[in-house]
Parts: sequence; C-alpha cells; structure tokens
Amino acid sequence: MRPSASLRTSVILVVALASASHVSAQTFQRLGTCPTLGCVFPPDQTDFLAGQLFDIRLEVHAPVNGTEAFNGGVVNEQFSFCVQRGREACQDVTKFFKIKDSVLEKWNFTYYEDLFAKDAGTPVLVNVASKAYRALSLTKSGPYAAKLTYNGRSTTIANWFVREPATRRKAKNVLLFIGDGMTQSMITAARLIAHKSVNGKYQSLMQMDQMDNLGHQMTHSVDSFITDSANSATALYTGKKSTVNALNVYADSSKNSLDDPKVETIAELFRRRIGGALGIVSTAFIADATPAALCAHTRDRGQYAAVVTEYLNNATTVNATFAWPTSCQGPDVIFGGGAEQFIAGPGSPGGVDYYKAFQAQGYNVVNSKTQLLAAGNKAKTLGIFSVSNMAKWIDRNVLKDNLKNQKNSPTGDGTDAVDQPGLKEMTLKAIDILQSRSKKNQGWFMMSEAASIDKMMHVLDYDRALGELLELDDTIRESIAHLKKIGEYENTLIVVTADHGHGFDVFGGADTKYLAAQTDDRKKRAAIGVYTNSGLSGYTVAEGSLPNNNTIVYGAEGPNFPVQWNPRYAFAAGFGANPDHRETYALNTNGPRVPAVNSANGVVVNPTDNVDGFNVGGTIGVDETQGVHSLQDVSVFANGPGSEAFRGVYNSVDIFFKIADALALGRTS
Amino acid sequence: MRPSASLRTSVILVVALASASHVSAQTFQRLGTCPTLGCVFPPDQTDFLAGQLFDIRLEVHAPVNGTEAFNGGVVNEQFSFCVQRGREACQDVTKFFKIKDSVLEKWNFTYYEDLFAKDAGTPVLVNVASKAYRALSLTKSGPYAAKLTYNGRSTTIANWFVREPATRRKAKNVLLFIGDGMTQSMITAARLIAHKSVNGKYQSLMQMDQMDNLGHQMTHSVDSFITDSANSATALYTGKKSTVNALNVYADSSKNSLDDPKVETIAELFRRRIGGALGIVSTAFIADATPAALCAHTRDRGQYAAVVTEYLNNATTVNATFAWPTSCQGPDVIFGGGAEQFIAGPGSPGGVDYYKAFQAQGYNVVNSKTQLLAAGNKAKTLGIFSVSNMAKWIDRNVLKDNLKNQKNSPTGDGTDAVDQPGLKEMTLKAIDILQSRSKKNQGWFMMSEAASIDKMMHVLDYDRALGELLELDDTIRESIAHLKKIGEYENTLIVVTADHGHGFDVFGGADTKYLAAQTDDRKKRAAIGVYTNSGLSGYTVAEGSLPNNNTIVYGAEGPNFPVQWNPRYAFAAGFGANPDHRETYALNTNGPRVPAVNSANGVVVNPTDNVDGFNVGGTIGVDETQGVHSLQDVSVFANGPGSEAFRGVYNSVDIFFKIADALALGRTS
Repeated sequence: MRPSASLRTSVILVVALASASHVSAQTFQRLGTCPTLGCVFPPDQTDFLAGQLFDIRLEVHAPVNGTEAFNGGVVNEQFSFCVQRGREACQDVTKFFKIKDSVLEKWNFTYYEDLFAKDAGTPVLVNVASKAYRALSLTKSGPYAAKLTYNGRSTTIANWFVREPATRRKAKNVLLFIGDGMTQSMITAARLIAHKSVNGKYQSLMQMDQMDNLGHQMTHSVDSFITDSANSATALYTGKKSTVNALNVYADSSKNSLDDPKVETIAELFRRRIGGALGIVSTAFIADATPAALCAHTRDRGQYAAVVTEYLNNATTVNATFAWPTSCQGPDVIFGGGAEQFIAGPGSPGGVDYYKAFQAQGYNVVNSKTQLLAAGNKAKTLGIFSVSNMAKWIDRNVLKDNLKNQKNSPTGDGTDAVDQPGLKEMTLKAIDILQSRSKKNQGWFMMSEAASIDKMMHVLDYDRALGELLELDDTIRESIAHLKKIGEYENTLIVVTADHGHGFDVFGGADTKYLAAQTDDRKKRAAIGVYTNSGLSGYTVAEGSLPNNNTIVYGAEGPNFPVQWNPRYAFAAGFGANPDHRETYALNTNGPRVPAVNSANGVVVNPTDNVDGFNVGGTIGVDETQGVHSLQDVSVFANGPGSEAFRGVYNSVDIFFKIADALALGRTS
Repeated sequence: MRPSASLRTSVILVVALASASHVSAQTFQRLGTCPTLGCVFPPDQTDFLAGQLFDIRLEVHAPVNGTEAFNGGVVNEQFSFCVQRGREACQDVTKFFKIKDSVLEKWNFTYYEDLFAKDAGTPVLVNVASKAYRALSLTKSGPYAAKLTYNGRSTTIANWFVREPATRRKAKNVLLFIGDGMTQSMITAARLIAHKSVNGKYQSLMQMDQMDNLGHQMTHSVDSFITDSANSATALYTGKKSTVNALNVYADSSKNSLDDPKVETIAELFRRRIGGALGIVSTAFIADATPAALCAHTRDRGQYAAVVTEYLNNATTVNATFAWPTSCQGPDVIFGGGAEQFIAGPGSPGGVDYYKAFQAQGYNVVNSKTQLLAAGNKAKTLGIFSVSNMAKWIDRNVLKDNLKNQKNSPTGDGTDAVDQPGLKEMTLKAIDILQSRSKKNQGWFMMSEAASIDKMMHVLDYDRALGELLELDDTIRESIAHLKKIGEYENTLIVVTADHGHGFDVFGGADTKYLAAQTDDRKKRAAIGVYTNSGLSGYTVAEGSLPNNNTIVYGAEGPNFPVQWNPRYAFAAGFGANPDHRETYALNTNGPRVPAVNSANGVVVNPTDNVDGFNVGGTIGVDETQGVHSLQDVSVFANGPGSEAFRGVYNSVDIFFKIADALALGRTS
C-alpha cells in the first residue's frame, strides 16, 4: 500500500482502534475481522475490482459469558445495514443494490478466550443473529462505507474501496507459477546446490534470478499474521485476505462451512469476462488448497469432494440454498495428483466415479505421463497421475525405487504410479492444450504449482524440497522457451511467486561422514562447519570421479540440478519452527522424510528417521508433527506484458489486481 | 551475472573444474581460491573497475604430507607469471605492467584436511615460494588472462575482466545504509511489530518498503558459502569477494596478516578520483569490520589498532615494507563506538591517546550526543560515544536504566555513556558536516551502519535487533526528508542493503503469560500459537489502556515503533543456527541477551537467561556461544540517480560497480 492509500484510510482507523479493547482478542479471537459485537463481511479495508462479485454477511453477537458477556446472551435481532458511495447518503442495502431483504438466521458457537480457559474447559458461548446478501458487485471506482447499526446505537463501519480498473488489456495470456512455501532462502539454497560457483562467481543462474522484474509480497492472513495456503491463495486470486483454511470466502461463525460469504476469483472473472481457456496444474492432489482456490468456495479447505465438484460445476451445485452465478466453467486443463477424489469411493463426490463425470462433460482423461504426452490438444483434459500428492523430483529422477510399493496408481487398481510426469511435462502440455483451445484473442490463464516445495519443507526434507524448487525453475525456463517457439512469449505475462514462507535457511556445511561416526550428540555437532568452514558446495562436484565425468554442463543454459545429491560435505540448514527431530543433513534415500511421530506423550522424534543424527528439540506445540509456515515476505518474479507492475514491495492481494489489470478484467458498468 | 557474462567464462571453466580433484577441499581448504598447487591472487573470475588499484600475489605450494603431498615437500622456486589482454600475447608481468621483478619469499603453513585429521592432531605441512607485485591497475576494459607456470609445465590461469566503466556521473552524493545481518525476514517482522494492520492491510509501511527500486544480492564469500561481515563488506566496497575475516585483501598463506594482496575500496577511489567528502557512521565500535572495510587492509579484522591507523593515515603506515598509494585520506566524519582504540592503552595504536592523534590532524572530537548536536559543521569530526558497541535503541529509549553501571564512557573515566546519540542523530549530523565540507560538485560519500541488528540477532535478542532495524528505517526516512530540505535529495543515490543474513523468521505467536506459568518444557511449548493462533500483532495495541491512549500516530508518516515492546502475546521466532538456549519470547528487560555460556563441557544454556523458558537444543558446534550467519540473498533498496541499476538479482560485488558507475569512478587511461 502506498501513502495515498494510507491517507485514505487514516480517518477510518480511529474506529478500528477503538474497537480493539480486548487485547486477548489479538490471538484468541471470537471471530476474525470482528473485534466488536457487530460484524460486516467483507470487512473494513477491503478493496474490490470493479464488477467483481461478492456476498455480504452480517452478524450480531451476544456472548453469554466471558469478558465480552452482553445482555445475558440475548442477541438483539434488530439491526440495519446501509451502504454509501463516497459522500453520498447511506442507503439501506436493499435499496443500494436493488435487492430484496434476506431472511434472519440464528445460531450459536463457542470459543476459548485464552489457553488457560482452554485448559480449564471453560468456553465462551456466543449467540448470533445474521443476514446474508448474495452475488453483488460494485462497479464505480472510489471509496464506499458499509455501516451496520446494531444493539441500538452501536455501529460497525466497513470501508471498502473499488480500485480504478485498467481499460487496456496488456496480456493475452497469463502463466502464474506458484512455488508453494518458496522462501528466498530456498531459492538461494537451490542456486548453491545446482549452479557452479568459481571463486564466488556463479557460472549459471536460476531462471528466477534472470526474470525482468522483482518484487516482494506480504503474505499474512486477514486475522492472523501467519497464513496457510488456502487464505494466501485466496489473496492472490481474489484480492481479498481471508482466514486460515478458507477458500474464497470470509469465514463467518455459522456451522455450515459452505454458506460463508464468497468472493469471485481471477479464474472466474477470466471465464466470465473474456471466456478464455483456463488451466490448473499442480504436483499436489488436485483438491489441495492452492489449485482449489482458483475455483472453490468453502471455509474448510478439507472439503475435497466439494472442491472437485466446483471444478466441474459450480458453487450453486455444492450448496443449492443460494445461487453463485459465476464459476470456472470446467477448466480446459486440470493436471495433478489426488485420484481419491475421482476413483468411486469415500473421497469422490457422492461416492461416484468422478473420472466418468468429467468424461460425461467432454473431458479427455489421462492417468500417466505416457498418456499425457500422447494426448491430443483439442479436448478439455483431466490428468490425474497418482493417489495423493505426486512423486517428488528426486524420487522420479534419482531414487526411482522409491516409486515402488506405493499402491498409488490413479486408476485405483492398487498398482504403483511409476509413470508420473513432472511439473515441466504437465505445464508444457497444458500450454499446448490451452493454446489450442484459446479462441482468437481470448488467450488463456494457467496456474502451475510446485506444491511439494512446501510439503517437503514441512517434513524438514530439505533436499526433496530443493529438488522440487529446481524442477519449478527448470519448468519456468522451458516454458519461456516453449512460448517463444510458439510465438506467444511476447503475449504472455509470466508471474512466479510463493504463497508464504518457511523459516528455513542454510547456515553452514556438515561433514556427514564425521557426523555419523560420532556417538555423542554434542560431538556430532562438531561436524557443522560455519563461516570459513562452511566451505564450498559439494553438490556441484562429482565425488570420487574425474571432473570430466561431470554429468551436468554448466553455462548460461539450464537445466541445472546437482551433480550429486548426497555429498560428504552437505549443507547444514535450520528450520526455526520444528517438531522434535534428528538431523544428519544427509539425503533421505528411502523417500520423503517423516521427522516426528505421535505418541502417548505427544509428538516425539521418529525413531526410524536419521538414526545417525543428533537431536534437535522442537520449538512448537507437541501436537505438531511438522514444521510450520513463517512470516517473511516472499519474492515475486515477472516477465512479459504488464510485468513492470510487479516491482517493489506490496501486499499479496495486489497480485490479483495487477493480473486483473494486465487482463483488463474490471468493468465500471 | 547475466548470460553474456556466463558465456564469456564458459571456456575457462574447464580449467577450474579440472583443478578441483580433491573434494575434501570443498570445505577444509589448503588455501581458499587455490585448488591447485599454484595460486594467483586476484584469483580466477575477478572483475575490476577500470583503473582500480590492486596487488598481485603468487604462491607455489609443496605439501610435505597429506593427500596432495608433492616432491617430498620441496617447493620449486622456479615459476613464471605472464598477463595477456584479450587475444594478445601473454607478457611477463614485469613487462606487462612495466615494473621490476619482486623478491622471492618463502614460508610454510599447516592445515587439517578434515575433522578426523583435526581430532587426530595430524596436520598437513605446506612449503611455499611466493612473489608479490604491488599497487597495479588495468585501465582498458575487456578480458585478461593471468597465467602462472610452475612445477615445470603446470599452469594456473586467472581470468580477469575489466568492466567498461560509466563515463557520465549520475550521482553527486552517495548514502549507503547497511543493516548488518538484515534479512528480509527481519524487515517483515519489524513491519509486524511497528506498523498497524487492519484486517490484513497495513496502515503505514516501512520506509524501505517504499523505496523506488528493489533488488537482491548474493552474499557468499570467495571460498565459503557463508560470509562474515569483513569479506562481505569487502565485496560491497571493492567488487571483490574475499575470505572470512579479510578486509580488502585476498587471504594469502603467509604468517603476516598485513602483507596480503590489497584491493582499492570505493572510499579510496572516491577520494583519489574526485576528492569529495567522506563519512563513516556505525553503531558498532568503529574499528569493526563493516566500517573498517571502507579504509583498512588486513587479513585479520581483529587488528583494530591497525584499522584506526588506516582511518587517520594509510596502509603504508601500517606495513611500511611496501607502498599502498591510496587511502581514505582521513574521513571527514567518523562516528561510532569503540573508544578503546582511542583511549591511551592496550587497544590504541602504539598505546597512545589516539583522540589527540586525530586532533593533531585537525579533527574536532566529540564524545556525547550533546557535544555532537552542538558541534559545528566545518571541521573534520571524530565522534566516539562509548567503549565497545553503542547502546541499543530499546535501552536508549525504553529501558534507560540499562545504560547505567556500564562504565563505558568514551572518555575512559569509568563513568557511564548515558548520553549517546542514535544512528539517526549521527547520520543527520554527518550529512550536515559532509555537505559543509563538500566543495562544489565534488559531493560526498557516506556509509551508515545499523550494526547491532546483527549483534543482537547473534545473541538471539530478537526484540533488540528489531529495535535497531526500526531505528535504521527511521534514519532512512529522516535522511530522505533532510536531503529534500537541503536540496540534495535529487543529487543523492541512496542504497539500503545488508551484508549477509541470519536464519531468523517469525512463525507464530507466544502467550508469554501462559508459557511462564507452565512448569514442563513440553507444556510450555503449548503457548506457541501457529497459523490461526498466531493471531494479530500485540505490539501495536496498548495493553490495558484505552485505545485513545496509544502513543504512536499511525498513518503514512513515521516514525513507527511498537506501542509496547513486551505484550502478553509476543511473536515467536526461530533461529536455525543457534547454541543451546531457552526461549520465552518475552522482552529481555535487563539489557542485551546472553543466551549461552562456556563451561567445562563446551557451550551450554546460560543459567540466568530466560529462566521461565523452554530449552532449545543447539544446532551448531558446542564452541559457538552465539547464532551464526546464513546463506540467503539479502534485499537491496535504492532511490535517486543511478538507483534503477539496483533492480533485480545480482552478486554482492555488483553493488560496488553500480555505485562506482553512478559516481563515474572508472578511468580507462
């Protein structure tokens, strides 16, 4: 946000501050974004693209007990809500939007005010009265104020702002790469292990390093400063920050996770406004948060069947009690893992064979790399290549035996998914299909996610995470080359970013041989070399072979992956937020790491993980088996038409507006 | 480095790879930058500014024992060295530079090949024959090859490149801010605690966030991937990567740390080429690496007396065996801590009163904030405000009692330095003096360092580190305002960056009250809230007081510091490379933290630190009492003439060239 925007909100801030009288609510919140007893969604400080669809939810709370106890818990059902544009008069919502009033809803919920209350088992009970208004939009740019009057004369004012939209379309196509959890520290570490440096000068660079424009985005949620991938993807795709686990809705307090107030995504807007081709590619199971957030609307990212239903149909299908008149309209390309949402069974929508449901709507379905590469480019294509998340680059390319005995065939026949494509193959094929299906000048939009950077960082499997990151970089490089080849490079805005970070960083080198040879934890730590003793990267030199036998040619062109993944002198890295675990810094050759496991006493070191390692005590709750996300801004790299807008430091929500402006998706009438 | 540069070096690379036959040398190196038995400094891959002065050192090694044992350890004294430009003939160094040959030097040194050898006490002995050539320069741009022929037909080729210099000066003044150890994660954390966010939208931003240009720089050393502040500052100021602890020299293997091959710094070049005014400001002791690297030349940053001698005189004074005909010529401003190098005694040059030595050369000497603010702007000014490092922002502004009983008066009279300026006061005063002393169009160059971001991160005192970072940001903001006021803003290139990072990141919130109330380490960890339970920043809300009592006005204008530094809900942060310690995440109210201490069994938890906290086992050697630096790229922010060059991703050495080009310091003849 730039100063002008700050000034615009400075008057409003007094209201927000005056509401925040309960400091405990900084962490244990009754309801995120609602520090008062009257709640408005979208909340104060929301920015909209002109013409973007959204729902409104109002809630009035009456806590029965606790520090905010009000009126014996009897909720006042008399509340009013008006909207004003600029300095015009505040009009009742029904008049402002020319809609009928909605029915009053009532429910209750409980929460804990702090950890002491949680330990004591003394929750606060809150009674709620609510109304919702669906699928509205604001077209005229400028400031708005939405005012809820409740409990007599109390008010909650939400200041909204409709940004002036771009009128000229700059980009025909958009290719958005998301390295899930990809922090700058990881990009730096990947460069270290995959690119040769001679006397401090790299002889080749990451493709990301060479992009034309660099920016930083802030990743925090609307109501907590650490985000998950659901609300961070919501921010990137809708321009609205939301709550952990929420996909394209503001989390309300109702029990139904499918009735929360929705916002329209970049994918829905691209379909509705332009009708271009749409592609979704991920190495995760395809119902996972980052791909799901292009099309799905739910407070609970775990509703996987609902997610794939929204891919194929729309939100109205998922919750028929009200209409949501925009959708992804069946993406032209959906590639990823997660066969359990397609094989008839407990994970699929209605328990039916959902591959057939896609085929019934004209999709070509492919289930292996071989089928993918052989597929035509004309039809909509669903490619599901494994149960759960797809195999990792290291296992597909270096330690192939780890693909065996997984019983993860996407066909559900109990065999192994040994013929999986990588992110590169999926993305290049998706470009061809989208290009084929894009009518003249409509162009295409694709999101391609390297999902397991995050997933492998969570389990402290640094090597696998960096393998995924290098595969992403290779994919970007090849995509640029392919776009140039087919004549679309100059038409395509390419944006590379992450949704959040992890507190990972390399701090030294580890002599893995010496470490394993010691028997005492403290002596093992002597294997960690810092500063001068961090040495040079062992990953770019072939151990025990003559230099001329190096398998990677260094130079200006990629791909560049480590010459060896398991050098004696490995990098040593730390992970600020980690469960109890052991470190050896050696490659986990048997597949993705499991650093910690549950026990009767909470999470403890996995007894079979890194048995030669030294113990590192955890820094997070003993209910966490994995590392957790971190706060730091993540990098943005961009090339192509409109990419200059991605320079500098900005909020994650701004990514949505920058892409929407490159595509000129806003409408002022 | 851009692809064109990669291509330029692709032929050479074969030589470098062929030399790297000993993989153990990746970490335990015989001599950094010298994988063969013949060494050339400046080494392969060195870039020069046209006309920049440098020394050449040649070494031929004969290891007596170990895996590289050669010729029974008898060193071959017959070696030759030629230099060629482009495709011209290789001329003997004496002919190429039109100099006399130098005398042969001989010595020996020992090193360990790995940790097993170190444990066994079996070093390798290496005999050395060497020559050095001093104070040379290359003026014609383009590639050069420097070829050492030794042991008969063995060769070591160093490929050098003289960059085409800018001919037009863009910037009259340069203001270079260094946040020592300032990683993007810290900037993000500082924003969290000092800037109010409402529903995910910051109401004000860091000054750094609002700079015009953003870049990333890679910080690794020439011979190890983790840097210290000496060689990283050398990279920033000379365009040459060097070795840990080295200041503006390439580390050779001789015993004398003052005879290593030197390179000319940006400050020396600015003095020699333009004669403008020069300022050095730091919150560290002024002989510390980051300020020292502007003027000093030594392999050992610990030679503090030599450093201050070079401030006042030159390298020839320090080591009279050879001439170094460039220097800082007595900077116009030197502000910082470190009175022990000035008070007559064991720390001062020759044991004399070095304040008097400065006064004898026309310096005005000030020793307090009061004297600083009262000082005139006409004279060269030495301001030394404390023994050792200066007091931290939190202690100067929030916990002032911590300034007492320090016996750190810069006068050496045993009283407390309670009247210390901050970085802001020092920098603003320095601008006025430099402006006053700058003759027309000569302009000025200043380096202003927030040194204790790094020093407080080392001791895991996150709050103090972020206080220093916020002070830096406030200093940048005020400096911009002051430059605008005096009409110099449009003439001044402002660059803000760091010299390296730390693996710090915020990952959640901690209920410090709940944490302290638990008695079991694992139960204490339940106080750490992640994702949703990270909550909102407690630092921007006044606890227990009405909102209207907030002492900070939020908005577009700073300064912004936390409303409170010790909220119940604090941030929880991790530090990947740490000694054994305890965490409470509460403010250390008694002064800078000491997390770990030495014991008979190596470094252990400081028994008096964070006694309410839970234990976090160390991840580095038990000889380390502090956290250590990390790998990740650091951010660069830049405003003003020439600042566009600081966009994108580049090597730390490029900062030197970008600044030198903005000042047009290169000379082609």
